[in-house]
Amino acid sequence: MTDSVARPLRTAVTRKDVARYAGVSAAVVSYVVNGGPKNVSPATEARVQEAVRVLGYRPNAAARALKLGSSHLLGLVVPDTRNPFFIELAQAVEEEVSAMGYAVLMTNSSGSPARERTHIRNLAGRQVDGVFLASNLFEPDLAELQAANIPTVLLATTMKAEGFSTVGTDLRAGAKAAVEHLIGHGHTSIALAMGDNVVGAMDGRELGWLDALSHAGLGEGPIVRSPFTRAGGYAAGQRLIAAAQRPTAVFASSDMQAIGILRALNEAGVAVPDEMAMVSFDGSIDAEYCWPPLSSVKQPVRAMAQAAVSALVGELRTAEPQHLVIPSELVLRSSCGCP
Amino acid sequence: MTDSVARPLRTAVTRKDVARYAGVSAAVVSYVVNGGPKNVSPATEARVQEAVRVLGYRPNAAARALKLGSSHLLGLVVPDTRNPFFIELAQAVEEEVSAMGYAVLMTNSSGSPARERTHIRNLAGRQVDGVFLASNLFEPDLAELQAANIPTVLLATTMKAEGFSTVGTDLRAGAKAAVEHLIGHGHTSIALAMGDNVVGAMDGRELGWLDALSHAGLGEGPIVRSPFTRAGGYAAGQRLIAAAQRPTAVFASSDMQAIGILRALNEAGVAVPDEMAMVSFDGSIDAEYCWPPLSSVKQPVRAMAQAAVSALVGELRTAEPQHLVIPSELVLRSSCGCP
Repeated sequence: MTDSVARPLRTAVTRKDVARYAGVSAAVVSYVVNGGPKNVSPATEARVQEAVRVLGYRPNAAARALKLGSSHLLGLVVPDTRNPFFIELAQAVEEEVSAMGYAVLMTNSSGSPARERTHIRNLAGRQVDGVFLASNLFEPDLAELQAANIPTVLLATTMKAEGFSTVGTDLRAGAKAAVEHLIGHGHTSIALAMGDNVVGAMDGRELGWLDALSHAGLGEGPIVRSPFTRAGGYAAGQRLIAAAQRPTAVFASSDMQAIGILRALNEAGVAVPDEMAMVSFDGSIDAEYCWPPLSSVKQPVRAMAQAAVSALVGELRTAEPQHLVIPSELVLRSSCGCP
Repeated sequence: MTDSVARPLRTAVTRKDVARYAGVSAAVVSYVVNGGPKNVSPATEARVQEAVRVLGYRPNAAARALKLGSSHLLGLVVPDTRNPFFIELAQAVEEEVSAMGYAVLMTNSSGSPARERTHIRNLAGRQVDGVFLASNLFEPDLAELQAANIPTVLLATTMKAEGFSTVGTDLRAGAKAAVEHLIGHGHTSIALAMGDNVVGAMDGRELGWLDALSHAGLGEGPIVRSPFTRAGGYAAGQRLIAAAQRPTAVFASSDMQAIGILRALNEAGVAVPDEMAMVSFDGSIDAEYCWPPLSSVKQPVRAMAQAAVSALVGELRTAEPQHLVIPSELVLRSSCGCP
């Protein structure tokens, strides 16, 4: 820390240098660089841009942020970059905002609520224009963002946090559709593979699994809880195989866990779908490229990103927080028993 | 852009508020918040920290960056977050620097040299303390970073760019070891699956493949070039299957392509390793969780991250640029024919 505190400011090409090269006033350079507040003729603007390019002038972002009250920087907190769903969501958010001239500061909480709080504090301190928060927690700590008065959209959630817009999909409806599909294939003993980090309220995917079973008059299959990782899924798969009354199907609450379960089944020579049918949740690229390919409930990644960007910095940015719930879609491949 | 330019500065708790609450001078608050330049007694520091917490004071990061000439922010440019190798490298870099009190601005070029240049320009404009650049290109455009005088480490490369530290692994040696292993299993017709974006110089993995074949007196197997994606690998796999003289083994230059090749082989019922043996490159988690599991040359992700962090902001940050080449390791699973 001491090291960089002691480092002096870099000397660099200034606005005055650009003004002299372009033959305009420093104020005009500022109008061009900041897009206002006054207009500049196209010919003058071209001359200034040429000077900027030739001299390698870079407006000081920190100074501009102070002056304009905006950094054109958005924060994105994701809970776990090992999860392909969050990577795909981050890619979609990035593509949407970069088209609007924003850069994204992406941070990874790696499954740690403490790290999530640190990232939120850092982003608040950096005066980003807004934050997309995909939390590790069902009830994230929003105090820092509220105190800093930073516009925030909660991503990949359907919780109704006072004063915050949310964008998510209906986990319960998606899970119910997945389990009903397995029931349609004739299964009566359907297990659930769930994460082990659910505290307090029941996960929507667990509720959807229960909904489908009870509507069909079926008893609850076994529930296997393990970490939300590939290794967690692998352990869950081994437990399913060893179960006294082995189920004939399993609904996995994430592709990541499903990939681990598949590995355990493949290793043990348990045929999928004949001896164990599977449907997963997320619909990430991993579901398409594993073997056999996984039928999976596809989260509406692109639509969620578009809605979140619109709510944070686009058309939906209104005084009233939005609560957007976008439907998921069951994508059928071969792991469920479909041809 | 106009929207956020017009937004006023946020009003917030100031350093003076904290000073009044803690019963100290504003200068003392500054010493605590900035870690200097003067020392503060532990009791006073605790009182200031308490005031910071209670009032929700957040030092203005932009103002601090201007004053200190440091943002404690590092940029990380990765060429493609769809590639699990770069995700794992980014995670390792993040873990290493967060232990040193830095935050990481991660940006994704999505395989586009134009987007890479934009990210570099943005990072230079934001006056980050340093940049880790994992480029899309064999010869990235370093002019912006040079002009802005921002310390930069080139990551995942062994090129010797004048004035820049580099950290990478020896692709050629790693590939040679992989192909020699396939030769050891008795294969004499070994294909190469390679990306199609190699311009100019030959990729080290292609050279390593050639080295191993020529040392063993074997002719060149077919080369299949396709995009460096899972879908590219899938297309490459279909072409390998359809080849007039089908090879009995393939060396894939990335796990991502290997995953796509495996899908094509599994779909066509070509048994791995009996009808087609495979060794891949990267050693990402995808190689462990596909079916069958891939033997793969593991890139030294953790050691590369540690070396790069050390070169950018740690002990190796010296006047002289470092060129660090860290050996890879062939991790054997079942796709090569090993038990």
